[in-house]
Amino acid sequence: DLAFGLIAGPCQLESLDHARMLAEKIAESCAATKTPFIFKGSYDKANRSSLGGQRGLGAEQGLEILSKIRDEFGCPVLTDVHETHHCAMAAQAVDILQIPAFLCRQTDLLLAAGETGKAINIKKGQFLAPWDMDNVAAKVASTGNENIMLCDRGTSFGYNTLVSDFRGLPRMAQTGYPVCFDATHSVQQPGGNGNSSGGDRTMVPPLARAAVAVGTACLFIETHEDPDNAPSDGPNMIRIEDLGPLLGTLHAIDSVVKGF
Amino acid sequence: DLAFGLIAGPCQLESLDHARMLAEKIAESCAATKTPFIFKGSYDKANRSSLGGQRGLGAEQGLEILSKIRDEFGCPVLTDVHETHHCAMAAQAVDILQIPAFLCRQTDLLLAAGETGKAINIKKGQFLAPWDMDNVAAKVASTGNENIMLCDRGTSFGYNTLVSDFRGLPRMAQTGYPVCFDATHSVQQPGGNGNSSGGDRTMVPPLARAAVAVGTACLFIETHEDPDNAPSDGPNMIRIEDLGPLLGTLHAIDSVVKGF
Amino acid sequence: DLAFGLIAGPCQLESLDHARMLAEKIAESCAATKTPFIFKGSYDKANRSSLGGQRGLGAEQGLEILSKIRDEFGCPVLTDVHETHHCAMAAQAVDILQIPAFLCRQTDLLLAAGETGKAINIKKGQFLAPWDMDNVAAKVASTGNENIMLCDRGTSFGYNTLVSDFRGLPRMAQTGYPVCFDATHSVQQPGGNGNSSGGDRTMVPPLARAAVAVGTACLFIETHEDPDNAPSDGPNMIRIEDLGPLLGTLHAIDSVVKGF
Amino acid sequence: DLAFGLIAGPCQLESLDHARMLAEKIAESCAATKTPFIFKGSYDKANRSSLGGQRGLGAEQGLEILSKIRDEFGCPVLTDVHETHHCAMAAQAVDILQIPAFLCRQTDLLLAAGETGKAINIKKGQFLAPWDMDNVAAKVASTGNENIMLCDRGTSFGYNTLVSDFRGLPRMAQTGYPVCFDATHSVQQPGGNGNSSGGDRTMVPPLARAAVAVGTACLFIETHEDPDNAPSDGPNMIRIEDLGPLLGTLHAIDSVVKGF
Repeated sequence: DLAFGLIAGPCQLESLDHARMLAEKIAESCAATKTPFIFKGSYDKANRSSLGGQRGLGAEQGLEILSKIRDEFGCPVLTDVHETHHCAMAAQAVDILQIPAFLCRQTDLLLAAGETGKAINIKKGQFLAPWDMDNVAAKVASTGNENIMLCDRGTSFGYNTLVSDFRGLPRMAQTGYPVCFDATHSVQQPGGNGNSSGGDRTMVPPLARAAVAVGTACLFIETHEDPDNAPSDGPNMIRIEDLGPLLGTLHAIDSVVKGF
Repeated sequence: DLAFGLIAGPCQLESLDHARMLAEKIAESCAATKTPFIFKGSYDKANRSSLGGQRGLGAEQGLEILSKIRDEFGCPVLTDVHETHHCAMAAQAVDILQIPAFLCRQTDLLLAAGETGKAINIKKGQFLAPWDMDNVAAKVASTGNENIMLCDRGTSFGYNTLVSDFRGLPRMAQTGYPVCFDATHSVQQPGGNGNSSGGDRTMVPPLARAAVAVGTACLFIETHEDPDNAPSDGPNMIRIEDLGPLLGTLHAIDSVVKGF
Repeated sequence: DLAFGLIAGPCQLESLDHARMLAEKIAESCAATKTPFIFKGSYDKANRSSLGGQRGLGAEQGLEILSKIRDEFGCPVLTDVHETHHCAMAAQAVDILQIPAFLCRQTDLLLAAGETGKAINIKKGQFLAPWDMDNVAAKVASTGNENIMLCDRGTSFGYNTLVSDFRGLPRMAQTGYPVCFDATHSVQQPGGNGNSSGGDRTMVPPLARAAVAVGTACLFIETHEDPDNAPSDGPNMIRIEDLGPLLGTLHAIDSVVKGF
Repeated sequence: DLAFGLIAGPCQLESLDHARMLAEKIAESCAATKTPFIFKGSYDKANRSSLGGQRGLGAEQGLEILSKIRDEFGCPVLTDVHETHHCAMAAQAVDILQIPAFLCRQTDLLLAAGETGKAINIKKGQFLAPWDMDNVAAKVASTGNENIMLCDRGTSFGYNTLVSDFRGLPRMAQTGYPVCFDATHSVQQPGGNGNSSGGDRTMVPPLARAAVAVGTACLFIETHEDPDNAPSDGPNMIRIEDLGPLLGTLHAIDSVVKGF
C-alpha cells in the first residue's frame, strides 16, 4: 500500500493571496514526509447552519483561485459541488469534485459529477451506514467513471454530536475504492453553537492517528492560520503550524501499518 | 386548536388514473371525520437507495397529474423538489412545496422554494435535532414567506434505523409554525433491505396515534392499494382500506387532546 | 383491554408522614378516573450519578413505611431491589419488586426476585433493544413466576440523553406480559447536570399521552409536592397537583384506544 | 509514557489446564515486545443474554485457578465481581478487581471493591459518556483507594450495536487514572444473535491499533485457542496464534506515539 495522501486547505476560500499563503505552508508541512497533497477550498458554503453564516466567494472567483493554485503549486485541487449544473463548470477548474455528505444520496448530482470524468470524493452521509455507500458509489460508477474515493466525516450520534466509527474505513474499502478520513468534520458538533456548528480541534490529531492506524488511503484536514477567526468551521480546523508535526507522527504510524 | 389535517397519497405518482383512484379513496376515508386532506405525490424519487430504484414519471407528467387532481377534487396538492430550478416550475402546479429531509440544510433550495410564495413543508433532516430546525425555518422566512410547516420523519439511531422522538413535536412547535408528523417515513429502515429501504407498516398506526396524542397540526401518511408492489416505500405505506378506520381513532384522540 | 393502572409515588422515600401525604394526594388524583394505583418508593438509591447524591432511608425504615402505606390505603406497594440478598427481605413488605434498568441483565437478581413469588416489574436497560427483553423475562419466568411486567424508561441516544422509542411498547407486549411506560425516567438527561441527572418534566405529559395512545397496561409517574427540592430525580417529577388533570386526559385517550 | 500493558485471557475460565495453556501462550506472545500482561478470567458470567448461556466454574474453583496462574507465571491476575459480597473473597485471589460495565453505577459495589485495596478496573457503562466516569471513579477513590483504571468497551449506538468513540480515551485520561481499551467487547453486537451476543473479531486488530494510536495505557483482549467453540464471547475473541503478531504492530505504533 502507498503512504497516505492529504487533502488540505481552508474550509472556505477567502482570497487568492490567502489560498496561496496556505498552499505554501501546506506544501512546506508536507515536505519532510513527502506527503502528496491536494489543495481543497470551497467557493460556496451552501448548507450553513443559519442564514447568517458567510457563503463564500462564489463560483467564478473561487474556481479561478483554485485553478491558479493548481498551476502555481503543481498540486491537484478539489472543491465541493451542490447542484447538478455546477458539476461541469467546476470540473473545468479542479481535479476532484467532492459530493457533500448531506447530498450523497442525490442521484442526479452523483451522475452529473461522474459524467465529468473527474475524480469524485464522496462523503458518507452522517445518516448512512458504511455499507450503504456501496450503492452510492455504484451510482457514480454507472457513468463509467471509477475514479471514486469514499470519505468518512462522522455519523449521527444523538443530537448535535457525531461519532467516528473506525470499523467503517475497512468496510468502505471493501468496495475496492480508496477511503479517506475527514479528521476535521468528524470532530464537528453540528448545530452545537446554536447558529453555527461547534467542534473540538484538540481531537483532530488523535482521530487522525486512529484513522492511519486502522489504515486509510487519504486524510482530509482543514487548516487555517487563525482558525478562531475563520469564516466557517473554525472550531474544527487546526492551526497551520501544527500540520507538519502531525504529519510526521501520522507518517510514522502509516509506515508501521502498511510496512513500507 | 384545529383538528389535524392529512397529507396523503402514494409515495410516487404512477399515472393519472392511479392518482385519481387513490385521491377518491382518500377523500372517502376522510369523509366521516371531515379531515381536510392534501394530496401528495412525487414525480421524481431523486435519492433512491440504489440506482435500480424507479425514479418516477418526471416533472412534466407528474405535475400535470397533480394539477388535475387539484382541479377534480378541490384539494390542495403537494410535491417535493430537489434542486433550486425545480421550485418555480413545481410551484405552478402545486400548493405546497416539500423540502426533502436530506436537503433541509441547502440554503439555495430553501430560498428558491420560499420565493415561490407557496406553502413550504420542510422535513427535519434525520441528522438534525428538533431545535436545529429554528435556523432552517428562518432561511425560508427570510424570503418573506412565513407559510411554513415543519415535519418530523424520524432521526438517525444507529445504522439503518430511525427513531421518532416525540419531544420533537412540541419543540418544533415553539417556532410558531404548524408541525406535521410523517408516520410513513418514520417507520422506514433506511437501506435496511440492501438495495432499498425496509420498514414496518404495522408501526404506522401506533406512531400516528402517539403523534396525535402529543399534539400535531398535520399527519403525513402514504398509502397505496397494493403497497407490497408499489414502486417505492412499499414496506412503509399502509393499505388504503386501512386509512379510514385509522382516521377515526386519530380524530377521537385529537378531540380529547385539543378539547374540541 | 383494561384501563391503565398507575405506579406513582416519590422517587425516594423521605418519611412516613411524607409518604402518607403523597399517597393520599395520589389516591385523590386517581379518584375521578377510578385509576387503580400502586404506591412506589425507593428505600435506597443505589446508583446515583455521584457519591454526593442522597441514598435514602435504608431498607428497614423504608420497607416499614411501604408496609404501612399498604395497610392504610389498601393499595399495592412497589420498591426496587439491587442485590440478590435484598429480594427476600423486600418481598415481605411489598407486592411488587422492581428490577432497575442497569441491573436487568443480572441473572442472579432476576432469579432471586422471581423466587419470591411476588410480581416483578423489570425496567428495560437503556442499552437494550425491546426484543432483548424476551430473554430477560424468560430468566424470571424460569423460576415459575410468570407475574411479570416489562417497563420502558428510555433508550441511550448519544451522550447524556435518552429517547423513547414507542415501537418498543407493542414489541415488548409480544411477550404476553403487560407493559408499562415510565414517563418520569424517560425524560431524564442522565448525568446531564454534571453531578446529577437532569431532565425535563414538561415532557412527562406529552410522552405519557403518547404511551397511552400507543397502548399501555400501566404508567409509571413519580410525583412530589415540591419536585425542585426533592432529594432525587426532581427535574423529572411532576407536581402532585398536576397528576389528577393529567390522568383525566390519559383516561380519555385510553378509552378511545381500548374501546371501553 | 510507558509502553501499553495487556490484559488477556479467555472470556470465562474453563479449567486449570486450559488457563495454564492459554497463560503460557499469552506469555510467549508477549515475549518479543516485552509487553507486561495481566491474566484475565471470569469465574461467573452473571449477565448472559439468556438463561441458556453457560455461567462458568463458580467462585471457588475459578479463584483457585487464578491464584495458581499468578503463582506459576508470576503475572498479576484479574477477575470481575458482580455483588458486594464477592469483593472481599475475590480480592484474596486476584490483584485486580474488575467492575462490569452494566454495574459501573452501583455505588455499593464500587465502594466494596475499593475497600479491598486492590487495583480496580472499571468498565465504562455502554450508557455513559466518557465524562460521566469522573463521578464513577470518585466513588472508588472515596475509599482511599486511588489504584483505579478506566476501561472503554463501547457505547450504545442504536439497537444491538456498539460504537467505539476514541475521543473517550483522552477524555477519561483527564481523570489522571490510566485508561484501557477493551478491543474484545467493543466489537460485540449485544444480543445480536438472539439468545447470545454476536460480534466481529476481524475488527479487533484495527480497533486495537486505533486505540494505541490515540494513546492508551492498557489493552484488554480476550483470546482463545478455538473461539468459535468457546463458551462465551466467541465471536469477539481472537485466536491465540494471532495475538503475538498483533502485539508486534501495536508495540511499534505505541513507540511512535509515545516516543520511546
